[in-house]
Amino acid sequence: MYASLTKQIGAELQAGDQLPTTRSLVSRFGVSPITVQRALVRLAQEGLIATRPGHGAFVAERRERSGGVDYGWQAVVLGSSTLALEEFHDVFTLPRPDVIPLGVGYLDMEAQPSAALASATSRAARRPGAWDRVPAEGIEALRAWFARQAGDASVNDILIVPGGQAALSTVFRALATPGAPVLVESPAHLGTLAVLRAAGLRPVPVPCDMDGVRPDLLEAAFKASGGRVFACQPTYANPTGATLPHDRRRAVLEIARRTGAFIVEDDAARDLAIDGAPPAPLVADDDGHVVYVRSLTKSAAPGLRIAGVCARGPAGVRLRAVQVLADPFVSGPMQEAALELVSSPAWARHLKLLRSILRHRRDVAVEAVRAHLPRAKLEIVPKGGVVLWVELPEGVDDVAFARAGLARGVHVNPGRAWFPAEPEGAYFRLSYAGAGATAIETGVARLGGALDAALAAGEPSRSSGRMRSPRSG
Amino acid sequence: MYASLTKQIGAELQAGDQLPTTRSLVSRFGVSPITVQRALVRLAQEGLIATRPGHGAFVAERRERSGGVDYGWQAVVLGSSTLALEEFHDVFTLPRPDVIPLGVGYLDMEAQPSAALASATSRAARRPGAWDRVPAEGIEALRAWFARQAGDASVNDILIVPGGQAALSTVFRALATPGAPVLVESPAHLGTLAVLRAAGLRPVPVPCDMDGVRPDLLEAAFKASGGRVFACQPTYANPTGATLPHDRRRAVLEIARRTGAFIVEDDAARDLAIDGAPPAPLVADDDGHVVYVRSLTKSAAPGLRIAGVCARGPAGVRLRAVQVLADPFVSGPMQEAALELVSSPAWARHLKLLRSILRHRRDVAVEAVRAHLPRAKLEIVPKGGVVLWVELPEGVDDVAFARAGLARGVHVNPGRAWFPAEPEGAYFRLSYAGAGATAIETGVARLGGALDAALAAGEPSRSSGRMRSPRSG
Repeated sequence: MYASLTKQIGAELQAGDQLPTTRSLVSRFGVSPITVQRALVRLAQEGLIATRPGHGAFVAERRERSGGVDYGWQAVVLGSSTLALEEFHDVFTLPRPDVIPLGVGYLDMEAQPSAALASATSRAARRPGAWDRVPAEGIEALRAWFARQAGDASVNDILIVPGGQAALSTVFRALATPGAPVLVESPAHLGTLAVLRAAGLRPVPVPCDMDGVRPDLLEAAFKASGGRVFACQPTYANPTGATLPHDRRRAVLEIARRTGAFIVEDDAARDLAIDGAPPAPLVADDDGHVVYVRSLTKSAAPGLRIAGVCARGPAGVRLRAVQVLADPFVSGPMQEAALELVSSPAWARHLKLLRSILRHRRDVAVEAVRAHLPRAKLEIVPKGGVVLWVELPEGVDDVAFARAGLARGVHVNPGRAWFPAEPEGAYFRLSYAGAGATAIETGVARLGGALDAALAAGEPSRSSGRMRSPRSG
Repeated sequence: MYASLTKQIGAELQAGDQLPTTRSLVSRFGVSPITVQRALVRLAQEGLIATRPGHGAFVAERRERSGGVDYGWQAVVLGSSTLALEEFHDVFTLPRPDVIPLGVGYLDMEAQPSAALASATSRAARRPGAWDRVPAEGIEALRAWFARQAGDASVNDILIVPGGQAALSTVFRALATPGAPVLVESPAHLGTLAVLRAAGLRPVPVPCDMDGVRPDLLEAAFKASGGRVFACQPTYANPTGATLPHDRRRAVLEIARRTGAFIVEDDAARDLAIDGAPPAPLVADDDGHVVYVRSLTKSAAPGLRIAGVCARGPAGVRLRAVQVLADPFVSGPMQEAALELVSSPAWARHLKLLRSILRHRRDVAVEAVRAHLPRAKLEIVPKGGVVLWVELPEGVDDVAFARAGLARGVHVNPGRAWFPAEPEGAYFRLSYAGAGATAIETGVARLGGALDAALAAGEPSRSSGRMRSPRSG
């Protein structure tokens, strides 16, 4: 259907010609209207047709078709890219609806408090003055809520931003200037690595073990690099699932104080506790060294793009100045809706339900990995969060494995993108945020087949001597 | 009341002590509960007290009070700032409620389509899957709407972002790397200048006259600077109100093609036409040289933070990669609400009402400036938009004038911040977006007094030889 249309556009149809209606394409090709729609969307994405809502689809004008216009001069002006574009493809693109989504970090609809969000938003949108400007730093009551989350911080140190990724983008551009080193966990949160590279900052890896970052190496990395910022996820880290124990938390803070450095504490998964309560955040013991990021996007719904940042002293001032340029303030009704949600009894109920959903999914995922991928290694069973970090057997390429998975209708992420430098091995990241237990079980079973395929593909190339860094413990 | 409390905090109350209740403060000082609340908010903002919602207000702990913690190490790490912080203070801070706001570019509530927005948002928030993730580039139908606005562009070239300022922040970081020159109108949109400086880019001024940018000097500036990006507002420019005539539009496009350069066309005021219809945007004649920014925030309501960017070729790809890091996608319900608003009959009605409101306010503002500030010069009566750009008499300092205005309860912006280099004279910017006709008339009358005060203050310092650049025509 898609192939036939492409051909026909080249042959029968000219630029500007209208395409046959969906109905006539349905009968001509004997397919469903959905199939026709999908083909049209794909053609539009490739610039071969242009859809004009209300008028139908037309063969694209020359200038809309790839190759029709010479954009060579643009490449000269834009120069080389500091963005590793190919990394985003797997992570930020929505997988096709027929693929089991084990590579997506957002909660699926089953786990979203949609009804509570809908009524909170309705009420917020109807309040007098709702659509007016609100203070750049956010509405007072929502800042107060985030202040309590940040170890009873002062409301004046809180800034409301549109989601966790926006927070990180602002924080790193505020704390460091282009070219500066920024210490990160290895492996690190992918969104953090991407933001650092885009801002022209230099990620410096600090090795982690099953208990998170190693304080001795953190101190050494500060000394060796001259960096004065360390980015971390001490609680249910993404991707490893590790949680920094109490003594390491104290040590990390102590090192930051001795060094005169900032710790950026990304506490994205705090609301996603599964076993027991999470330890207190670093920011609770802070005297100006911790910049704390807390988002509602991961624990409520992807569409609720609200995060709070806590930063004390001049850092807070700098941060507000950077943020106001990227986005002068977050929409009032969104902030009011978020506030009503987290202040209502529905929020505690949602978190309780979420915990039971995540516990079930995690247990199914762990069990399935052990059953269907016996040669892979799962070192950490996370006590919270939504991801498993699985090491592949020696000789298996992570990207080849992920592609084999995709060919079998399962989306997982190859692990190499999470490493700031040379990968310490071949890993994949499996998220149980976006799929139910049955889909997880089916998906991991298919990954078993993918691993066999990748192993078979990997064998011959083993002797070709792909560089592997020495294994770290 | 505020002064007494400050004193008392120093004397009677210790860190951690609870403040008397609002009720007892009301009776003790004989003021209204609102006055008490305002004083408490101010004390909290200054870090002297900390409010714990549900528990009352307490004298702040040492670490929450300015000077209590040594943040000296932060200054070392943060280094010097590329952000001219003091510039934002006037522009981005909300004026006190008792001040007439003639320095605010956002529509006041009278001019917002609040009812239509409220019902559109309610419906959007309740749709099944509303809070789920949406594509990074935005929902298809809203992109199609922005595509039609961008001279019938292809929907594939459109990216939805959270507002015009977010759009500019993304566009300039995508098109130019730190240190690169970017050509701007002189005077230029303040938000553009601020974004350029924050991104480490170098604004290069291109002089404007009553008809906007001068094409001969644009070509010269491209040659002299080596810059390959020109930022402009060809329609109802902010701050001057100038609109680029047809022949200059053709010339600007021609120069961009010859030079191999991008034009960033910020079309923020298109929906704010007052006299007649605006000319077609530059992007309508585009073959990949124009990156087009169109926002709904200025024409609908400050709280509707939605803009569309149109960029063709590799520039579009680069732009999407930069944006996804700053904010992976814009909230689905917000996009759906915006779509419903602009697709409904209520939108045309709103624009018609808005036009009549703005015409009345502009006429009152122009009349008032001529009556109360006869020594000031208003060269351009804008055919659209929300600002007047008024030149002050020789010898008057723009900042002193704006401060004298604020002392009289009127907020306007001193003009120097809008110049990328040396100001061509002393100007102030008066916005009629955020105040009704009566308030405008009252405010400008008070500015008459402020001008007299500034003239008196300016006289002695005149001989002290403040540097003035030569007048440009």
